[in-house]
Amino acid sequence: MQNSKAQNATEKGCKIDMEKLKNDLLLQAAIGEKTERTPVWLMRQAGRILKEYREVRASVSGFKELVQNPDLAAEVTIQPVDLLAVDAAIIFSDILEVPQAMGLPYEMIEKTGPTFRETIKSESDLKKIHTANINDLKYVIDAISISKKRLDSRVPLIGFAGAPWTIFCYMVEGKGSKTFSEARKMIIRNPTLSHQLLETITESTILYLKAQIQAGANLVQIFDSWAGILGPDLYREFGLRYINEICDAIDEVPKTVFAKGAFFVRKDLKNTNCQVVGLDWHTHARASRSIIGEDKTLQGNLDPAILYGSDDFIIEKTTEMMRSFEGKRHIANLGHGVYPDTEVEKVKLFIETVKEYKN
Amino acid sequence: MQNSKAQNATEKGCKIDMEKLKNDLLLQAAIGEKTERTPVWLMRQAGRILKEYREVRASVSGFKELVQNPDLAAEVTIQPVDLLAVDAAIIFSDILEVPQAMGLPYEMIEKTGPTFRETIKSESDLKKIHTANINDLKYVIDAISISKKRLDSRVPLIGFAGAPWTIFCYMVEGKGSKTFSEARKMIIRNPTLSHQLLETITESTILYLKAQIQAGANLVQIFDSWAGILGPDLYREFGLRYINEICDAIDEVPKTVFAKGAFFVRKDLKNTNCQVVGLDWHTHARASRSIIGEDKTLQGNLDPAILYGSDDFIIEKTTEMMRSFEGKRHIANLGHGVYPDTEVEKVKLFIETVKEYKN
Repeated sequence: MQNSKAQNATEKGCKIDMEKLKNDLLLQAAIGEKTERTPVWLMRQAGRILKEYREVRASVSGFKELVQNPDLAAEVTIQPVDLLAVDAAIIFSDILEVPQAMGLPYEMIEKTGPTFRETIKSESDLKKIHTANINDLKYVIDAISISKKRLDSRVPLIGFAGAPWTIFCYMVEGKGSKTFSEARKMIIRNPTLSHQLLETITESTILYLKAQIQAGANLVQIFDSWAGILGPDLYREFGLRYINEICDAIDEVPKTVFAKGAFFVRKDLKNTNCQVVGLDWHTHARASRSIIGEDKTLQGNLDPAILYGSDDFIIEKTTEMMRSFEGKRHIANLGHGVYPDTEVEKVKLFIETVKEYKN
Repeated sequence: MQNSKAQNATEKGCKIDMEKLKNDLLLQAAIGEKTERTPVWLMRQAGRILKEYREVRASVSGFKELVQNPDLAAEVTIQPVDLLAVDAAIIFSDILEVPQAMGLPYEMIEKTGPTFRETIKSESDLKKIHTANINDLKYVIDAISISKKRLDSRVPLIGFAGAPWTIFCYMVEGKGSKTFSEARKMIIRNPTLSHQLLETITESTILYLKAQIQAGANLVQIFDSWAGILGPDLYREFGLRYINEICDAIDEVPKTVFAKGAFFVRKDLKNTNCQVVGLDWHTHARASRSIIGEDKTLQGNLDPAILYGSDDFIIEKTTEMMRSFEGKRHIANLGHGVYPDTEVEKVKLFIETVKEYKN
């Protein structure tokens, strides 16, 4: 059966490695195989919602120290599998490791978030950076290898990277922003320079994801957190184009594209060479299905704030969400990362509700 | 002609006062009258883009001092009419004057933005606040009266308020936020308390807008800056419902609803008792028209970042934007407030391009 599934996957334009996973629901659902139930995991499941994570985090001096310690990163990667019984692990890391490996280090500043001392604004700034050397990301690759060993084929491991547009936003702006108007100024004032930078990020991202896959990642997700800040035309030119380049370059494993806020390019995503499209909690599953068509798996999309509710409310809203996907190709998740102050019992209830849901 | 227009407006569920405006294009377009050209103004036109504004701003100790000084507020309100030749003035003020008049003062902190020392989190916190006393907003009303006098009927004056949901976000969260997860937690954990607070904000807003109209505002706009943070169901219950209450309570002048990011309730806005619906730059005019129907005027929606571009680029994109509205009921604007570092010559070019556009 594994072999015929792998065969199917190859025909569908992606290979699934021959590793015999005890639970491969996520990969089956990703490539459009019927599954006995809908697989479920949460964005940011490896994180502050778990006291076991907070203990590990407290044992090191900062967030970056944790990301760069393969042994501890693997430990927190696996925690949600043990503690929450999710159907996948996702490697604990940060999307900003890539610009750092390109020559632009960031600092994680309390309350401000990630901050770059230097930014890219001009032709001469481009000389500061280079295509990422994967050796400089070895700690992530090592964390994947260790995670795979410790997972012992229980569930798939998801690798990930930020989409080039989102990485570009941080490299130009230097930090988070409500409008990212510096990044948007740059693509408008200097499209050539912008495309050069986006191309270098794209090349780096492809190398990085391929190294993750080589180390054992069973599926990769591309996060475009700031997709929704651009209008449709500019997003097609400076955002989606590079996501497409990445998806076209990778055929080793299934790919998920999560372009947050980019409801306006759902019809374009239909033609993106990926198996899974992530939906945020603003986009309705039925409408998205009719735009994106039947050939993709949809992932999502409960409003993370719902998990602040009572048990009854969570069950009701999760069931409604499940129903909205109509039993078609679906991976259950939230519509964004779980909020750090969510009670772990509520997260478990969400997961159980998905697992018990019958179409 | 004025009289028959006013008659028409009354039939359409809103009155236009008998004031003989030299340029009433905005009001004509708002109520769906044919106009010789499309009217144009910009959100945040009274602000940092103008050196004349920056001079006035530098003459007082802070942003709040400017807002609370009727004479200076009127001066900066009128500047864009003189300097940019826009088809409307909008009173210079801040949406957070309302929560302040409800008993929750804010401070404008450099780089952090508006911050409330106290927030509303519990039943007992509700005792801190009350329906706004319009006397406590007298400086805005006075600024409107002075502006009207100085405008001397050249163009209409727009009044405005924040939508209850957006004001609620600030009152609960205490400051800006990427996720407003505290505010969202509150509506989910304590819907009764949330509705009480939203109701008090709504009552205050209705009183406030009526006082603005009494003082001479010719149209009012409701800004729901954080509409896009909720999913469709929650937005209907905690957002749109209160906008509808406000729109139903006001029939003195045309009303504009700008629910930023809330593409998912466009079909609901069709039934909102307003004449104009504002569009951000993510929502395409044609698609929005087909959802919202022919009975509303649409306002917007050039990406503000476009004004960072070359003259040719601005002309091209503005013309494209105009064309996308297909000569149907339209008020030209950006899809959000103009960015403060936009060159004033670029803003003028946008305005001229709209004025010269022929369907």
